[in-house]
Amino acid sequence: VKGISRRHLLGAAGVAAASLAPNALALPRSQVRAWDVFTDVLVIGSGAAGLSASIEARASGVSVLLTEFLPVMGGASTISGGVIYAGGGTSLQRALRIEDSVEAMYNYLVAAGGHHQQLDKIQRYCEDSPAHFEWLMDQGITYRDRLSELRVLPDWRESLYYSASELDWPHRDAASPVPRGHVPAAEGSNGGRELVNALLSSAKAAGVELRSGVKASQLVTEDDGTVVGAVLDSIGQRISVRARRGVVLACGGFVQNRTMLELHAPELARCSVPFSGAGDNGDGIAMGMAVGGVGLRMQQGAIAMSLREPEEVVSGLVVNANGTRFIAEDAHQGALGHAISRQPDGKAWLITDQRSSYTVDQDERPLVAQANSVGNIAEQLGFPRGSLQNTVAYYNRNAANGIDPQFHKAVDMLRPLQGPPYSAWDLSSGNAITRVYTLGGLHTTVDGQVINGLGDNIPGLYAAGRTSAGLPVAPYVVEGLSLGDCTYFGRRAGRAAAGV
Amino acid sequence: VKGISRRHLLGAAGVAAASLAPNALALPRSQVRAWDVFTDVLVIGSGAAGLSASIEARASGVSVLLTEFLPVMGGASTISGGVIYAGGGTSLQRALRIEDSVEAMYNYLVAAGGHHQQLDKIQRYCEDSPAHFEWLMDQGITYRDRLSELRVLPDWRESLYYSASELDWPHRDAASPVPRGHVPAAEGSNGGRELVNALLSSAKAAGVELRSGVKASQLVTEDDGTVVGAVLDSIGQRISVRARRGVVLACGGFVQNRTMLELHAPELARCSVPFSGAGDNGDGIAMGMAVGGVGLRMQQGAIAMSLREPEEVVSGLVVNANGTRFIAEDAHQGALGHAISRQPDGKAWLITDQRSSYTVDQDERPLVAQANSVGNIAEQLGFPRGSLQNTVAYYNRNAANGIDPQFHKAVDMLRPLQGPPYSAWDLSSGNAITRVYTLGGLHTTVDGQVINGLGDNIPGLYAAGRTSAGLPVAPYVVEGLSLGDCTYFGRRAGRAAAGV
Repeated sequence: VKGISRRHLLGAAGVAAASLAPNALALPRSQVRAWDVFTDVLVIGSGAAGLSASIEARASGVSVLLTEFLPVMGGASTISGGVIYAGGGTSLQRALRIEDSVEAMYNYLVAAGGHHQQLDKIQRYCEDSPAHFEWLMDQGITYRDRLSELRVLPDWRESLYYSASELDWPHRDAASPVPRGHVPAAEGSNGGRELVNALLSSAKAAGVELRSGVKASQLVTEDDGTVVGAVLDSIGQRISVRARRGVVLACGGFVQNRTMLELHAPELARCSVPFSGAGDNGDGIAMGMAVGGVGLRMQQGAIAMSLREPEEVVSGLVVNANGTRFIAEDAHQGALGHAISRQPDGKAWLITDQRSSYTVDQDERPLVAQANSVGNIAEQLGFPRGSLQNTVAYYNRNAANGIDPQFHKAVDMLRPLQGPPYSAWDLSSGNAITRVYTLGGLHTTVDGQVINGLGDNIPGLYAAGRTSAGLPVAPYVVEGLSLGDCTYFGRRAGRAAAGV
Repeated sequence: VKGISRRHLLGAAGVAAASLAPNALALPRSQVRAWDVFTDVLVIGSGAAGLSASIEARASGVSVLLTEFLPVMGGASTISGGVIYAGGGTSLQRALRIEDSVEAMYNYLVAAGGHHQQLDKIQRYCEDSPAHFEWLMDQGITYRDRLSELRVLPDWRESLYYSASELDWPHRDAASPVPRGHVPAAEGSNGGRELVNALLSSAKAAGVELRSGVKASQLVTEDDGTVVGAVLDSIGQRISVRARRGVVLACGGFVQNRTMLELHAPELARCSVPFSGAGDNGDGIAMGMAVGGVGLRMQQGAIAMSLREPEEVVSGLVVNANGTRFIAEDAHQGALGHAISRQPDGKAWLITDQRSSYTVDQDERPLVAQANSVGNIAEQLGFPRGSLQNTVAYYNRNAANGIDPQFHKAVDMLRPLQGPPYSAWDLSSGNAITRVYTLGGLHTTVDGQVINGLGDNIPGLYAAGRTSAGLPVAPYVVEGLSLGDCTYFGRRAGRAAAGV
């Protein structure tokens, strides 16, 4: 088992070369002449999901090989804010005298999760959240006992904030709002790097074998469909790895794979900026599908567009091409980005007056019209005659009374739009800077086992993180739930794969 | 080859029973001790897609076995209207002096198809449409040389009508409107039965072996992933069928499979009425996924809700829970049903005045409020304060001038809403009668070959009709495109599977 040497990974040739069509669906066991490398658990991908799976599998006492396609470890988790959505009374919440319960957290997540959700996963996640947070700290991630006043990713001096839509209508009515965004104490916005580095050190210390620059290309299956290993490419060499207990696919999503994106999620394809690492190329999902795994919610993505900074612009109006509002302007960035992507042609504009205007040039949201009347703005944008004026009149009438009957924008952001010049800023998915990553992936059990089209587990195959269809669903309004899902269900997948 | 006798289908036991976990992913060839039945092409499913595939495969001179799970042949096609969306100058169009071209048809289908479409399929379909219509007539389907004046399924005296959204905004601006809905000359709304009966007779005459009451349960694969046959269940007996040239999955969609529906398409799950036969249970899609096929657009469905009859109700207003309009009230039934399903909680109401009211009890769309003022209706429905009044005021102002600037309702349906009593009729997906079937299915090439997660064909496996992701996409506004896709791409799949 043990010593998977550099020689093994570079010098192997145990796969019967003649039989290997590079595009074969999956490699049958019978085509592997001899295994080049042996391990108990093979984890593919080194983001938060893969690292968590590795650590936990290794903790079960089995051998673990973790491979990474890119030269550097960490995946897209590294460039994230490192936020973990945790609650139910974590030690950090308790230290800050924040009252929370498993039930409150569950109720919020169900309310925020829309139609596409797996209640069994939500339940486990909430029940184990305090313990999972302790585990993260055990890996060496540090947090500060300070609550942020703001609703944006705090700097390194504060480690807890309202990262999700708890304070927004209608979620604030569905469950008592509690701050649950746990942010590593790292300078700048480097919480993701901090989190990955801690997990990486922990994996190394635990004896996980780590290899970067190695691309997984095919899973190896027995006649009965059991996954027993994988074929890797390392600098042009094909290496067969026998994974005695299981393979964990933790290779991220597919936002960097243009073909897959346009095929499965055309609404995401028109968003301007893939918010992920170069490794999110769909390899893991494709490999899993190739052995019978089922893709779930493949059209869904996390689409971020926030107007919360600077505060004054939120008193403007967001409208679609019909000239009508469709969401509160102070909505969570995930709710706003998602809603815009679903408007006709993915188009929307922020309409501001003198007081709500941006004061600096907006590369992120281009200024596309300016005028002394709302009617002239509407004309420049080609809106249906009179519709924007009608929208503004209704909005103003109510804002003067401090209410937004339709979308419940926060009272302190409500005031009639008045005072030229009026401006229109383009928020359309394809024109404004809209950050997106995919949420669809392989359908899995609570233990990360990949499920086939008949509803049965595929023996030996596990998936975690954005390679799987996990807790995050669209609209993605629970910042920190993706990394929370990666680490928590990554651990479960690792433990299940070790199977001891 | 030939004679697949009743004995074969009932008395076989060639599958090594001990090795057969009923939930196995797929059956490896090595587990089949001896084949019970031999054929060149096995077609699973007897709707329009399966019958067309069978006829065309048989025309290539190979042997064809077609199996049907239900006791009766015909699938969901039987209960459809039998409409085929055809154009580019079919003989019926020409007989009625309707000018059409491949280009006009292509332009319309692309405009109506939204983001999720395969342009290569649309192109082949349009180019071959006149010839495909001749083929349908060659099978014995008859049509009458009469154009319908109406936009609903005509009775048996007329065989051509505007079945799609060609006359609706914005499609009427994207391409010159042409009637392309071809309806078999059958009494009542029995066009579907007429179509199926003709194809069935043709298949029998051509020498296709037909067996009903036989359920396909697993595909059989070689080590390299090639599909070489299937295992069928016939009255408790498991029968192995060797398909020398290919297997065509033509088993319909999955609207009758509650588990698959809630998993893949929760918005469809809340629609009140599955509009399909009992055979649309997802078997074909699940079997295809189990050998590596990829599901595409699994969340999409055809959702029908029409207000075009009686004509007067269209002069009412359709609004969502925000009290705002979101579509023209005279929209195509597929556009209206889809749009309602995407409103908050899938909820919508038709607001009528005295003149636009239904005059009969509406089981299909329950009456949920009645009052002497619009404001009182809004209050009863719990709408945001003042929003419905604001919507009606803007609408009335424009309707008085004969325009609908936002949604372009037809001019003759535009008049201010006025004159109590006002009524609200529930159009919500879960409350009104909303007919739905699934459009998602296996990803295929123009020749029906099933594509795996790596983008490669799965050798020996084909899919057609609603088991595949074909031309119909959501919103489904091209009535007749589903059956058109079934028959045309069914034929292509049959031909490709025969491979001669």
